[in-house]
Amino acid sequence: MSSILKNDLLLRALLREPTPRRPIWLMRQAGRYLPEYRATRARAGGFLQMCTNPDIACEITLQPIDRFPLDAAILFSDILTIPHAMDLGLEFEAGEGPKFERPVRSAADIDKLGVPDPGHDLKYVIDAVALVRRELNGRVPLIGFAGSPWTVATYMVEGGGSKTFGQIKRMMYEAPRDLHRLLELLAKATIVYLNAQIAAGAQAVMLFDTWGGVLTPLQYEEFSLRYMAEVVDALTREAGGRRVPNIVFTKGGGAWVKKIAAIGCDAVGIDWTTDLASARHAVEGRVALQGNLDPAALFAPPETLRAETLRVLASYGEGVGHVFNLGHGITPDVDPEQVAILVDTVQNYGLGGQPKEG
Amino acid sequence: MSSILKNDLLLRALLREPTPRRPIWLMRQAGRYLPEYRATRARAGGFLQMCTNPDIACEITLQPIDRFPLDAAILFSDILTIPHAMDLGLEFEAGEGPKFERPVRSAADIDKLGVPDPGHDLKYVIDAVALVRRELNGRVPLIGFAGSPWTVATYMVEGGGSKTFGQIKRMMYEAPRDLHRLLELLAKATIVYLNAQIAAGAQAVMLFDTWGGVLTPLQYEEFSLRYMAEVVDALTREAGGRRVPNIVFTKGGGAWVKKIAAIGCDAVGIDWTTDLASARHAVEGRVALQGNLDPAALFAPPETLRAETLRVLASYGEGVGHVFNLGHGITPDVDPEQVAILVDTVQNYGLGGQPKEG
Repeated sequence: MSSILKNDLLLRALLREPTPRRPIWLMRQAGRYLPEYRATRARAGGFLQMCTNPDIACEITLQPIDRFPLDAAILFSDILTIPHAMDLGLEFEAGEGPKFERPVRSAADIDKLGVPDPGHDLKYVIDAVALVRRELNGRVPLIGFAGSPWTVATYMVEGGGSKTFGQIKRMMYEAPRDLHRLLELLAKATIVYLNAQIAAGAQAVMLFDTWGGVLTPLQYEEFSLRYMAEVVDALTREAGGRRVPNIVFTKGGGAWVKKIAAIGCDAVGIDWTTDLASARHAVEGRVALQGNLDPAALFAPPETLRAETLRVLASYGEGVGHVFNLGHGITPDVDPEQVAILVDTVQNYGLGGQPKEG
Repeated sequence: MSSILKNDLLLRALLREPTPRRPIWLMRQAGRYLPEYRATRARAGGFLQMCTNPDIACEITLQPIDRFPLDAAILFSDILTIPHAMDLGLEFEAGEGPKFERPVRSAADIDKLGVPDPGHDLKYVIDAVALVRRELNGRVPLIGFAGSPWTVATYMVEGGGSKTFGQIKRMMYEAPRDLHRLLELLAKATIVYLNAQIAAGAQAVMLFDTWGGVLTPLQYEEFSLRYMAEVVDALTREAGGRRVPNIVFTKGGGAWVKKIAAIGCDAVGIDWTTDLASARHAVEGRVALQGNLDPAALFAPPETLRAETLRVLASYGEGVGHVFNLGHGITPDVDPEQVAILVDTVQNYGLGGQPKEG
């Protein structure tokens, strides 16, 4: 952990410090679109087997870094590690997504839950963080992450993925205090979990609020944003002599970026349905922005992919505070060659002939 | 069709004319939450069998009208009737959603498609409209509908529902001209289809753009809104001596209401993720708004359901131009008693003790 960080563009951009060019990483960059990932997965036997084995998690985390000159690594893990540690019987059925054998439906179910001890119940994650830091050897910073309390709760209450979120919304309307108790517990668990990741070497952290966008504006503030604010507020601010920036990403939260920016986070993730220029206007320089190329642009012919990438870069505009990313995770059917084109386009923007930022 | 319309609140509210109280109808009001619907379905054998049989479609359309004092009927049908008429092999597998045996993936696939003749290929819909009008006998107006060209195209290209819309987005980036050809064809088909519904007796029409919200802002304008504008522009404006109002609803389109209002439609549907007050502010009185109670509020205890309903009514505020609805379709697991409470709450708002609108 004492190795010097050779590329700190991500950390500087997240803190709105000047950078010679814009950093880029991709959500799900360590994923199924890479043949080396598929090979490791076949060897490991399954998704949970990969997540819970620090050597394999480290190997997968580094795969995209070894292949592309990306500006950050993100830990290979899952947003459901916390409920997995709560012993709800998590399984990933092939092609089906996550399922919990024992979903959380009642006050009694919530009573049974406790805050997992990261050093014990989630040791495999913490070990993976330390291992990745050692293997990265200062090449790029490592991002740790967790699901937002609301998003993790949706899986726990629904018992898996959902289209209508009927179970958790029923709880929200019928027993809002129970749901608040669950979210409070998840916020506490997320705080110790992310701080343990930071202590083990994560140099930035991100909260994924994948399902905040299924809420009404008032519900979003009460059941999702409030608990993310609690987490952000309690995060370790500095480690190894550097500030540890945090990123909050609500998919479908484009209308609420101003409110998200106000919780005290360093950066806000923006999905592809929101115009980056409007989002930047809305946050009035309070936070950095991360995003937001349509993930499907990676299917485009190279010249179109380049044009779309340049449009995102230009829509943010000049000045500090932009981390390039997709607006959502990269999909399994993407050709890795397209990622090379994307990374190259972003990393050459603003250099040479084009106007300089800073 | 010459019967006098006894309750024209919907038509007046959609045209921003004063009404003594706000009208209410519910998306999917003729649906699985009603035991009488489930009984009819069991008898008919399946979803397509119900849609394609005018007697059954009429019976189902009237079920919620017979049970609740709703202010409008909406034809029981499906947004996939047009591609069904294009002979793509539509099937509804139980619990699986729609599937097309022959999805549209190439220029050659598009070449094979023609505009269905509503009087022939979609005669069952047109017959159902006429039958419902006769059976309604002027109780409330009948709303006809179609899917938006973009939304219908997603099903045709993906071959069914989708989470990532990878196939149609691939076409959008790789062969945008082909996709435009398909959308243009669908716009033409939708125009003749909706105008045939109007000629048969539909007193208002609605475009359901269920998947416009998966697009970037620029893609939305180019691939969805543009074709809805084309449809709206070509709709029959008057029938039976009355103006036929139209409603455009893009789920997830909250950020774009101002742009939607500018295409010349009479009303814009608003989903539950957007605040109705902000939407009203954005459209500056150009259109009426329809929405937007969280469908899950129907799971709440009666007092909470009433409070949530009043909050939606109050968030629109005073004055003309609000049609109460859910922000999305009613779900199958709702207790019909809850719908009675909702309808009662809306219909008593602004009467008696509360401030009058107009």
